[in-house]
Amino acid sequence: MKTKKNFFQVLAFQFLIWGAQAQEVGQSPWGPEDEIGSLNMMTDSSRIQILSQIGSGQVYDLSVDYFVGMPSFHSLGDPSYQYWLTHTPHGTVVDNPNGMGEAMNEKVSYTGDAVSMYTHMGTHIDALNHFGLNGLIWNGFSPEEHLGDKGWKKTGAEKIPPIIARGLLLDVRALVDSFPPNYRITIQDLKACLKRQKTEIQKGDVILIRTGQAKHYEDAAHYLHQYPGISLAAAQWLVEEKGAMLLGADNLSFEAFPPEKEDNWVPVHTYLLAERGVMFLEQMMLEDLAKDKVYEFAFIAASLKLRGASGSPMRPIAIPIN
Amino acid sequence: MKTKKNFFQVLAFQFLIWGAQAQEVGQSPWGPEDEIGSLNMMTDSSRIQILSQIGSGQVYDLSVDYFVGMPSFHSLGDPSYQYWLTHTPHGTVVDNPNGMGEAMNEKVSYTGDAVSMYTHMGTHIDALNHFGLNGLIWNGFSPEEHLGDKGWKKTGAEKIPPIIARGLLLDVRALVDSFPPNYRITIQDLKACLKRQKTEIQKGDVILIRTGQAKHYEDAAHYLHQYPGISLAAAQWLVEEKGAMLLGADNLSFEAFPPEKEDNWVPVHTYLLAERGVMFLEQMMLEDLAKDKVYEFAFIAASLKLRGASGSPMRPIAIPIN
Amino acid sequence: MKTKKNFFQVLAFQFLIWGAQAQEVGQSPWGPEDEIGSLNMMTDSSRIQILSQIGSGQVYDLSVDYFVGMPSFHSLGDPSYQYWLTHTPHGTVVDNPNGMGEAMNEKVSYTGDAVSMYTHMGTHIDALNHFGLNGLIWNGFSPEEHLGDKGWKKTGAEKIPPIIARGLLLDVRALVDSFPPNYRITIQDLKACLKRQKTEIQKGDVILIRTGQAKHYEDAAHYLHQYPGISLAAAQWLVEEKGAMLLGADNLSFEAFPPEKEDNWVPVHTYLLAERGVMFLEQMMLEDLAKDKVYEFAFIAASLKLRGASGSPMRPIAIPIN
Amino acid sequence: MKTKKNFFQVLAFQFLIWGAQAQEVGQSPWGPEDEIGSLNMMTDSSRIQILSQIGSGQVYDLSVDYFVGMPSFHSLGDPSYQYWLTHTPHGTVVDNPNGMGEAMNEKVSYTGDAVSMYTHMGTHIDALNHFGLNGLIWNGFSPEEHLGDKGWKKTGAEKIPPIIARGLLLDVRALVDSFPPNYRITIQDLKACLKRQKTEIQKGDVILIRTGQAKHYEDAAHYLHQYPGISLAAAQWLVEEKGAMLLGADNLSFEAFPPEKEDNWVPVHTYLLAERGVMFLEQMMLEDLAKDKVYEFAFIAASLKLRGASGSPMRPIAIPIN
Repeated sequence: MKTKKNFFQVLAFQFLIWGAQAQEVGQSPWGPEDEIGSLNMMTDSSRIQILSQIGSGQVYDLSVDYFVGMPSFHSLGDPSYQYWLTHTPHGTVVDNPNGMGEAMNEKVSYTGDAVSMYTHMGTHIDALNHFGLNGLIWNGFSPEEHLGDKGWKKTGAEKIPPIIARGLLLDVRALVDSFPPNYRITIQDLKACLKRQKTEIQKGDVILIRTGQAKHYEDAAHYLHQYPGISLAAAQWLVEEKGAMLLGADNLSFEAFPPEKEDNWVPVHTYLLAERGVMFLEQMMLEDLAKDKVYEFAFIAASLKLRGASGSPMRPIAIPIN
Repeated sequence: MKTKKNFFQVLAFQFLIWGAQAQEVGQSPWGPEDEIGSLNMMTDSSRIQILSQIGSGQVYDLSVDYFVGMPSFHSLGDPSYQYWLTHTPHGTVVDNPNGMGEAMNEKVSYTGDAVSMYTHMGTHIDALNHFGLNGLIWNGFSPEEHLGDKGWKKTGAEKIPPIIARGLLLDVRALVDSFPPNYRITIQDLKACLKRQKTEIQKGDVILIRTGQAKHYEDAAHYLHQYPGISLAAAQWLVEEKGAMLLGADNLSFEAFPPEKEDNWVPVHTYLLAERGVMFLEQMMLEDLAKDKVYEFAFIAASLKLRGASGSPMRPIAIPIN
Repeated sequence: MKTKKNFFQVLAFQFLIWGAQAQEVGQSPWGPEDEIGSLNMMTDSSRIQILSQIGSGQVYDLSVDYFVGMPSFHSLGDPSYQYWLTHTPHGTVVDNPNGMGEAMNEKVSYTGDAVSMYTHMGTHIDALNHFGLNGLIWNGFSPEEHLGDKGWKKTGAEKIPPIIARGLLLDVRALVDSFPPNYRITIQDLKACLKRQKTEIQKGDVILIRTGQAKHYEDAAHYLHQYPGISLAAAQWLVEEKGAMLLGADNLSFEAFPPEKEDNWVPVHTYLLAERGVMFLEQMMLEDLAKDKVYEFAFIAASLKLRGASGSPMRPIAIPIN
Repeated sequence: MKTKKNFFQVLAFQFLIWGAQAQEVGQSPWGPEDEIGSLNMMTDSSRIQILSQIGSGQVYDLSVDYFVGMPSFHSLGDPSYQYWLTHTPHGTVVDNPNGMGEAMNEKVSYTGDAVSMYTHMGTHIDALNHFGLNGLIWNGFSPEEHLGDKGWKKTGAEKIPPIIARGLLLDVRALVDSFPPNYRITIQDLKACLKRQKTEIQKGDVILIRTGQAKHYEDAAHYLHQYPGISLAAAQWLVEEKGAMLLGADNLSFEAFPPEKEDNWVPVHTYLLAERGVMFLEQMMLEDLAKDKVYEFAFIAASLKLRGASGSPMRPIAIPIN
């Protein structure tokens, strides 16, 4: 009887937490002007600590390629990746755009090109403004005051600093033969993974979760089909219990679809970005790290400073540490 | 008489070198399949050597922001940087693109955005295919065989590895009060700079030349106006005499315009990319390094892997070394 | 005395009109759901009336070309016109995008291309939502209710019907040797023009005003430099006194800059679109009509149905009438 | 015996025709500089003839809307239609792009927008350079001489004149309850259609073939799925037997897929454009004409003059004739 009552009390308490606390944007512990959330955990001291542990000149490239036909989030109409040539050696001869004539343009063989893309495409980081709650974003910034036609005046991608921190690969894919469709990775999975790898999470870590989905990156239809993702509970555990500074995964959207909650179509996104101020990387390439069983490393990455943007491409690297 | 004869012989010899050698694309000393030129100088050993010298957790960001109105090379019709919102918190409520209705879209405040750009915009690296000579690019690759509608099958930006090397700032701007319009930096300037800084170039260095032009980056018209650049002779000296692996500068196009040679409108570009296989970075932000007199550092950068592209944005960082 | 008093009364009344009436968006006489303003003047009867007067098979093309480098309104960061090839005969052979191999792609020579543009570029029509007043557009529609991320739910370019009406060229340029910089065409100019041409405006006309600026269309810098435009008074006279249904001109922005009023940077735009529900065409090509002294014609045009858009390209034609 | 021999002779002859004649680009009967093929059939006389038959002021709009998510040919990586806002009333207040401040930007409510698209999207016309044979296009123009980075110097969309001609709807869809998947419309179908409608084809006609597919235009997946198209034989019959000047249909690609010939993946395209110099329209909206049984009409259309392009959007109209 007592137990049951407690159980309901716990439930009610949980509901209160979710209802009253979790469903609102967080106020930053780093102050009302904070625009980078948990990345404030980085300091000169934290950086030199990890840099001084580097024990190899081997570099792991954690980014996918950008190419026409690459996977992308298009169900809400966002543009696919486009690449086009603006100048070619032959075309320059025919067009003579510089007015210097055939001899010059046959000698100087010019190639130029352009790209267009949704900012959440390829290996990239989500900025804190990407998802908010109830009309506000992290730290209470509002579109009425801070969102112009060229993006957010607050928490735009240009504010994201270069990231140097301890990285930890959680090779969840190595635990199983395959995942069920749309599988959601649990706290138990993460714990099993840590045990299997004989690794521990440290406060301030960059946690990269391997689902193995990146194997299919060249085949967009396969990559986008029923991929596994991280559950809300697992994300909460990493952030609240373990003190992770930054998360990442090798799938399209970090979390899985359809959403695990009825009242929120991207509960992991809003939890991390809007409630907790924790950014994360998507569409990473973690296959080489996994193959070589490199679980701990210096994580170094710097996203493009796209002013006002809700996300930004980056090409992170990992260097094994001692 | 003999001297005079010798003088003419030297001239003729020089002419032969320029005519027969320099005006043709180079064949890579790293073999017929090489696509990255001088970046082959990097090894695990060269990387750990510089990484182990890191003596600070302070990070210098060497990249400019991307924003609508930023400077760009537009005289040949290339597209300016564009940024646009594809989803906003309010617009999502009005449009209901996910079909989930007003309550959901008022709760989950979605911001998404897209960008388009010429690949030679903001802080970026020029790939070896950007400029060739006489219809070929570095190592003899031809558009007939290797250039499709989605860019080059050879030497595309996706082939450029992450770069970790010793970086050296040459603060040429510190030598003068101001540069004359379209000033071309000479070998003497570089030597004076090294002496002033009490630094030496090492083989395999990333040499970053500060013209100070980046001060004007937010004012595109000023930034693009009669900016100083690096002379062909200075580029040759850095590569052939000093063994530089990679070059960079804080101006629009590394070299200055109008060109210093009548028969080539971008002689420094074709010399470095097509003849020597040496890439370079443009539109860098070197002001903080200069202000703090940080001349030697670990240079770490990884450009986006834009498949087939002639250039790629990157956000390099510098970390002071002991 | 009495007269003077009346004069001041009139002035005060005018001021009241401008202050109380003209500075607010208009409510459509065609009802609260109206989205096309004065184009409601068109009927089957008005169309057959003009079509039945057609007396020639000669067609005048009133549109400029779209090309990279064409003039555009870029001072607020809007994108220039871009054109790029997505498929070429040779590139298709190298890339093999359809997987059909070299023989097929050498036989079937494929060319495909894409464009991007600001919607107010080349010969185009301004939709009624392009400029509003005090946060509303024509007929009181509000962005809060009707503006999503994909444009306006009301008065978007897809609502603009094909236009068939009597067209009248007002060749103002023929009155003068040249215009002073940024000249504003007056009511007197229009009257002099009508007299010179021996033409009269009829209610429901499409009035096309030739400034001659289109002569410089291929030279963007010249075209954009200190061009003449239509004064607010002249626009008011055409609409309120003469009952014009649609206006047009051969310059960048119909009106001239800098603006003639201190409290409104585009007073002619807001007057026509927001107050009166009268659309207009910009960047037309009227040189052939002028050369042949064709002043009266059937005007036929149909803009692209760009859903939600604030403007749309069109290629109007004129056919002389009896 | 004789008959059988003749039969084989005919077959062989047909094969010769196809092998020797049809598989090469045509030389224009209008001369070596011709860039518009069969549209040369239009004259002032042909235009006034049809215009003078107009017996109604009712206008049929034959174009679909452009909107994000609209159907498009994307299997070879071509860009989807994109629309984005560059200026909004609220965003202008936040961004202050014109530097005029909050009061001005709250008063003058600015909306601007931009689009990007593949040129073969929505209701459009294919230019003669869209498909060639064996490395040449209509009239023998070659990419080596005439294809630059900004499109074709010959037969580009800017060369296509405004089109005014007799239009004839062939409502093939009215013959059947439904089409089998990927159905190819035959000569017999066209004849049955003419008989049912009691109409005849006249030399120089614009022939619009209704498959009914446009009913599904708002549902891109449905529209693109196994749609019916026009067979090569039917196209040949229309052009060679009946003297059609221009063709059109309401489906994605005029012809159906998979192709009816093994050695050519778009045999109807290459036949019409490259061999015969006959352009055609795709993705039309013919439902209203069909509903009202309007089979004969004045067809009036003018595509955007996209310089060098392989296709161009247009919004054709039809006006019933007596």
